Amino acid sequence: MENIEIVGMLAAFLTTSAFLPQVYKAYRNKSAKDVSLTMYLVLLVGLLLWLYYGWHIESMAIIMANSVTAILVIFILVLKIIYERTP
Amino acid sequence: MENIEIVGMLAAFLTTSAFLPQVYKAYRNKSAKDVSLTMYLVLLVGLLLWLYYGWHIESMAIIMANSVTAILVIFILVLKIIYERTP
Repeated sequence: MENIEIVGMLAAFLTTSAFLPQVYKAYRNKSAKDVSLTMYLVLLVGLLLWLYYGWHIESMAIIMANSVTAILVIFILVLKIIYERTP
Repeated sequence: MENIEIVGMLAAFLTTSAFLPQVYKAYRNKSAKDVSLTMYLVLLVGLLLWLYYGWHIESMAIIMANSVTAILVIFILVLKIIYERTP
């Protein structure tokens, strides 16, 4: 594998796994008040379009990175909605 | 342009602009307590690697999308750090 492809894979790994600390923080603090609902809804729609795009051009890298990110974003959305409903 | 490329561009537009509502929310509420610092630091490193990758493979799309996202992420980091320091 070319060196530059390793940089790309590391970039994809970081921009995907970055959402994990936000899932953990929301879960630990039982709060996601300052987290923007709009951001995560728009992000989810964008990620689903990336998945469709990746599936269409048959790019396993795009499918993998965006499906993992989408799952983490759904976790954050679910936690935010649960904690917002609990007074 | 092929239809699928329009889907890709829309996907890139959404996953980039998604961060705008978070900038606005943090600024309006003068708080980003529930926003994970680790998430945005890891994300920023990942985005900078994407920029390096895009510059190396000469992909204007990767450079554009990730530079705008990086700027928005820096805004969120700056707001979080400012509001955390102000009691």
